[in-house]
Amino acid sequence: MTYCVGIKVDQGLVFAGDTRTSASVDDVRTYSKLHTFEFDDRVIVLMSAGNLATTQAALSQICRDLEAPSGGRGMQTQRHLYDVAGYLGRVSARVDKETAGTGDYGASWLVGGQIGDDEPALYLVYPEGNFIACSPETPYMQIGETKYGKPILDRVISGGTSLEDAARCALVSLDSSMKSNISVGPPVDLAIVPRGALKVTRRMRFDIDTPYWQSLRSAWSRGLFSVFERLPRFAWEPGTPHATRASDRPSPQR
Amino acid sequence: MTYCVGIKVDQGLVFAGDTRTSASVDDVRTYSKLHTFEFDDRVIVLMSAGNLATTQAALSQICRDLEAPSGGRGMQTQRHLYDVAGYLGRVSARVDKETAGTGDYGASWLVGGQIGDDEPALYLVYPEGNFIACSPETPYMQIGETKYGKPILDRVISGGTSLEDAARCALVSLDSSMKSNISVGPPVDLAIVPRGALKVTRRMRFDIDTPYWQSLRSAWSRGLFSVFERLPRFAWEPGTPHATRASDRPSPQR
Repeated sequence: MTYCVGIKVDQGLVFAGDTRTSASVDDVRTYSKLHTFEFDDRVIVLMSAGNLATTQAALSQICRDLEAPSGGRGMQTQRHLYDVAGYLGRVSARVDKETAGTGDYGASWLVGGQIGDDEPALYLVYPEGNFIACSPETPYMQIGETKYGKPILDRVISGGTSLEDAARCALVSLDSSMKSNISVGPPVDLAIVPRGALKVTRRMRFDIDTPYWQSLRSAWSRGLFSVFERLPRFAWEPGTPHATRASDRPSPQR
Repeated sequence: MTYCVGIKVDQGLVFAGDTRTSASVDDVRTYSKLHTFEFDDRVIVLMSAGNLATTQAALSQICRDLEAPSGGRGMQTQRHLYDVAGYLGRVSARVDKETAGTGDYGASWLVGGQIGDDEPALYLVYPEGNFIACSPETPYMQIGETKYGKPILDRVISGGTSLEDAARCALVSLDSSMKSNISVGPPVDLAIVPRGALKVTRRMRFDIDTPYWQSLRSAWSRGLFSVFERLPRFAWEPGTPHATRASDRPSPQR
């Protein structure tokens, strides 16, 4: 499986994803699902989920198109990111269709970035090649194992969220997914694309022993426990109903 | 859809579930999915997810069997809760099979409780009628829309968790599910069965305007934000890396 999330806030874009792929529980591999492309006038980030052979074949085709002498149809010549999403969808759907002729080997994609003075954009491309865009009301997109990591995104992310907070939220979302589904696994890749920068200004990889990742996971886990311990009591519990009396209760961690 | 969770801790059992059913987005109804049965020597709690006609037909059969003069095969005559789970599975799978003859109208169940001096037990019964038990390493079971509400259960629940903490955790788990999936909806039903009580000692319904539910949701939401705001900073952010400087940052809520 896979879990990737893209976030679009006023300040720019954030992308994060795990690196675990599994054809079955006894065929688990590690591949980056985060692919960044920088040109003079544009930055484009791709993330992939689904059939690994299909995503690799599609990426290979995309890279060949970039190197074609005419540069005819590659990502560097598309006018808008909308056109890049359509191009990516056609490439991916064609690979899927050509594999065994069944259409059962599809891939989903996140594609985001900025071209020139265009507004930064983020799209989710379906295996069929069609796609949908982020909007102010829907400031993030997910592919793969999306559910475990969704609640924290729903609570935290809005247009006004800073790039750093969006990045932290993406990492917490990844952590929740990895805790509840072993098919989502470390290391975690992160990329930040500020509005107007036309490049990836931060690109990081967090493994289980990376100090920041360790401190983030530990702070989040301890924080959740401490909030949980202070939740309002039921009316029949010792003390005033709805009082907060965490101090005299043992921690669930101990 | 539906979301129900059953939790088994050392002190006993907790059951919680939503009440929304939907045949489609324009066919949404409210039904309790929590069914409690008390006898002199036993307490049994059922929760259902899946096809509504199947769960109602199965429950109806179960109630008829309870009233049969001989009391031959009803839940009140089974020796162990294991036998009750098998009986429930047979009834439910038969209804499914008899509907349109396709086996496409299945239901999943949680069945838990205690019979006499037996250890309290909790089972998840599949549409096919087979079932699995809770264990010390797997202290909770879910049916329906399970994923959004799983991370908090994974973090909090262990055998030593108190009944009240387990109940609060179940409510938070329901809240997360309702926030991320509109097919899971209020009111929420909760039942608590302490070890050895052989009855449901607490049975509550929380609607969106129930004061405890409001205060719980609000405390959890505010608490999560405050933990999030205090997460370690990235190395390039103002201030010492990994420092906690929440106080000078605006809350995402404002």
